[in-house]
Amino acid sequence: MSLWYDEVTDEAVRFGLKVERTLFMGKSDFQTVSVIETTAFGRALLLDDLWMTSERDEAVYHELIAHVPCTTAKRLERVLIIGGGDGGTAREVLKHPEVKHVDMVEIDGLVVETSKQFLQTIGSAWNDPRLHVTIGDGIAWVKRTDLEPYDVVIVDGSDPVGPAVGLFNREFYAGCHSMLRDGGCFITQSESPIMLKDVHLEMVRTIGEVFGIAHPLYGPVPLYPSGAWSWTYASKGVDRFAVNEARATPIEAQAKYWNRDIHRGAFALPNHVRLELGR
Amino acid sequence: MSLWYDEVTDEAVRFGLKVERTLFMGKSDFQTVSVIETTAFGRALLLDDLWMTSERDEAVYHELIAHVPCTTAKRLERVLIIGGGDGGTAREVLKHPEVKHVDMVEIDGLVVETSKQFLQTIGSAWNDPRLHVTIGDGIAWVKRTDLEPYDVVIVDGSDPVGPAVGLFNREFYAGCHSMLRDGGCFITQSESPIMLKDVHLEMVRTIGEVFGIAHPLYGPVPLYPSGAWSWTYASKGVDRFAVNEARATPIEAQAKYWNRDIHRGAFALPNHVRLELGR
Repeated sequence: MSLWYDEVTDEAVRFGLKVERTLFMGKSDFQTVSVIETTAFGRALLLDDLWMTSERDEAVYHELIAHVPCTTAKRLERVLIIGGGDGGTAREVLKHPEVKHVDMVEIDGLVVETSKQFLQTIGSAWNDPRLHVTIGDGIAWVKRTDLEPYDVVIVDGSDPVGPAVGLFNREFYAGCHSMLRDGGCFITQSESPIMLKDVHLEMVRTIGEVFGIAHPLYGPVPLYPSGAWSWTYASKGVDRFAVNEARATPIEAQAKYWNRDIHRGAFALPNHVRLELGR
Repeated sequence: MSLWYDEVTDEAVRFGLKVERTLFMGKSDFQTVSVIETTAFGRALLLDDLWMTSERDEAVYHELIAHVPCTTAKRLERVLIIGGGDGGTAREVLKHPEVKHVDMVEIDGLVVETSKQFLQTIGSAWNDPRLHVTIGDGIAWVKRTDLEPYDVVIVDGSDPVGPAVGLFNREFYAGCHSMLRDGGCFITQSESPIMLKDVHLEMVRTIGEVFGIAHPLYGPVPLYPSGAWSWTYASKGVDRFAVNEARATPIEAQAKYWNRDIHRGAFALPNHVRLELGR
């Protein structure tokens, strides 16, 4: 008998992976955290039974969410990551030698502990002295007034249900905006443009109200509903296409997905999105 | 009890849709042909139990495979479609008023008859007098020497198993090349760059040997394994980025996915592909 685990969306679409064994299952104050060994995608992390990341397909997500802002921000010394408990986003950010200080604010310590133990290929930069992990609430963090501003703010949270729901409203985006210095960049994952089109477009519009304009970008993440995923980028006065060549070249020498062509191409709006946003 | 149908890849990954009812199931000389009504994706066509197309997600596939060559070919009078039995590719090609004659050569008449009856929103151009459907072998067709050359050759076939296996070798691509006039364009679907990376890269290399160079392009098709799909484009002397503005403008006014930004962005090579192709 073979065991499968399927994530079901809208009670009508499912994506499943064959399971070799369950490596960990635990319950935090916030959610159920599991790591399973799959036949095809290597080890995979689930939160509340939803696929979060896997060894095989994680690069697209983490490279886009890190390198799109990190190669376009005017300066690149201080980076804030909200969420990102698997460590993949921090790993990519820390590939930039200009980065001096990364604050990662993850609400669920069990996600960090579990990822450190079971997903070492994803979170391979935990010991970098530039990385400062705080187990705490990202929503409260972006209300602080005692912090030096950041060059890049990355929101690497889960879906707008459960502990991440507060990462999807105007007040939170305004807090992120207030954290950025001039020439700084913001990015958040922003759901499937196919399966959650309305949530996606609402995020683009709301972030645009806060920053002046917001730009969605797209890429393939097989593990997520529909396989087509989005992120949304905004900034304080940055041209999203003006990639810093000195930062990009060493990344392109080893990245799995991101490069300058992908960077530009990811910002192309599917025609239905272009028409709905009136662009 | 709810019924689901899952397509399983490599015995380890599956994509499933909840089924409302089966509308048709029949067996031709070549394959099993089914149409099911799904809860989330509308009506879907399966060949030999593999997802081929659905009402909800078909636009990306058909718009890319049609408009990428049709907006870049020097002339646009004669188009050859190999396969394409659901009618979606012909529908998009025939949106171009310059097109005077389309030959569609589909090996399986049951696919055409089934699609005409059950997938009328996909194949909505069957009655266009410019469309000439031949039930026959595309491999034999491209060996003919009595045909006027084409401006565009589109290979819209299924996977390299079953009746479509002969659409994946050098001799067939050489036949397609011989069908094209100077300034003509060729495109074929070319599998998942994630789940079938080796097949994909081999297609790009082989088509490149025949045409001088071949250019893969990428887009999201939730119904297909991994949700990330590819097509491969080649030409007789055409710049793939030189989109004919007069052809593009009316398409952009109504398309669901394709537009000039998407056209350019689709050709961006994921970094691992760029490195493997040595570009």
